Amino acid sequence: MSSYEVIVLKEGYSKSEGQGHHRACGSISLIKGPKNVVVDTGNPWDRDHILDGLKKNGLSPEKIHYCVCTHGHSDHVGNLSMFDKAVHILSYDVCEGDKYHMHDFKTGIPYEIDDDVEVVPTPGHTGADISVIVSNTGLGTVAVTGDLFECLEDLEEPSLWQDNSENPELQQQWRIEVLKKADYIVPGHGKMFKVPEDYKRSMRVVMYHEEFHQVGNHATTLSEYVVIEEN
Amino acid sequence: MSSYEVIVLKEGYSKSEGQGHHRACGSISLIKGPKNVVVDTGNPWDRDHILDGLKKNGLSPEKIHYCVCTHGHSDHVGNLSMFDKAVHILSYDVCEGDKYHMHDFKTGIPYEIDDDVEVVPTPGHTGADISVIVSNTGLGTVAVTGDLFECLEDLEEPSLWQDNSENPELQQQWRIEVLKKADYIVPGHGKMFKVPEDYKRSMRVVMYHEEFHQVGNHATTLSEYVVIEEN
Repeated sequence: MSSYEVIVLKEGYSKSEGQGHHRACGSISLIKGPKNVVVDTGNPWDRDHILDGLKKNGLSPEKIHYCVCTHGHSDHVGNLSMFDKAVHILSYDVCEGDKYHMHDFKTGIPYEIDDDVEVVPTPGHTGADISVIVSNTGLGTVAVTGDLFECLEDLEEPSLWQDNSENPELQQQWRIEVLKKADYIVPGHGKMFKVPEDYKRSMRVVMYHEEFHQVGNHATTLSEYVVIEEN
Repeated sequence: MSSYEVIVLKEGYSKSEGQGHHRACGSISLIKGPKNVVVDTGNPWDRDHILDGLKKNGLSPEKIHYCVCTHGHSDHVGNLSMFDKAVHILSYDVCEGDKYHMHDFKTGIPYEIDDDVEVVPTPGHTGADISVIVSNTGLGTVAVTGDLFECLEDLEEPSLWQDNSENPELQQQWRIEVLKKADYIVPGHGKMFKVPEDYKRSMRVVMYHEEFHQVGNHATTLSEYVVIEEN
């Protein structure tokens, strides 16, 4: 029997508006069950959206046990103060009030909220990203990943995630780990999606490589898509 | 004539409580002048502290033009949503609502809020830290640095900052740059301090190096303090 449900309160997006501007917001998710967890809190202007979303699900901020932010970017950490009864986990830091509890995410150790809900380190997009893995939902295992995945389309268009990555090689490794575990993924900037069967079968990951070569006054760019398959 | 004043609304701290716990909060600062800027917003529980601090200085959240967060840790980004009239700058992202403006902090370009107030990239503690440099104050040039500097004592006790650094070599370079420019520093977790004269003279920076050696079953640690001086 499934004890947890993953509900997307706001679907993340990212749209270029040209001339150095874009509109963006990170996905805001609710994990509802024996422990209630909000994952990511949107832009600083999303407070009412979160309140409405919780209300529709019979909840209010004081009923949230954990506020987890996948990483410290402003479209994910805009509304921390509304969860003043929650334990906060932001990147690798765990706190209640000004009391910080050491947890060794750095060496890969998950933080268990519950038998069915764990917070795992998935760095690369920044130096200290985390994802929340929810087991035994009606959809199987759901991973709420922040910007480890931008959207479904980034599986085949690696520039969509690599362009925003502090460390693409590291991020790629964690993408593979999460693709192995998850049936569904809530990405940072797109719709929740089912992990495609061929990714489950072969751990197919597409990386984009670009190399610049300068010979005398001539500069050339060599670029290629590399498909990594672990059968 | 000085047009800006830097006021510390809450002095940051970090105290170990043993057994894997510590109490911490990042410094919260107000830069008051033609543009009002809040730098860092404390823990998610610091809302009232900020409101009181602004009030004592004749201000309220809607009078704040810029909310700048030096990096995305929870003791610095706890209260973004209270500044809904401000432009938000968190690490390398600049936004108003869900509209993000590209600024090329990555290549070292400062963001000018005003002739006397600029936001500069100072990465190392995380991959995308920023500091605010305020010129022509009554104290000369004041740098509000987040965790680029933890406290005055970290100048001579490098483990205080290096233990929390994602990239100590990079952070060290930016520490030197800021020590060159600033007369006073508001660090992330300690009192505002005057940059000591000998640091101004010789750009003295102390780094701590530790190397582990394993020979057969024997492990040894070689550690040393290295003083880097640029005369």
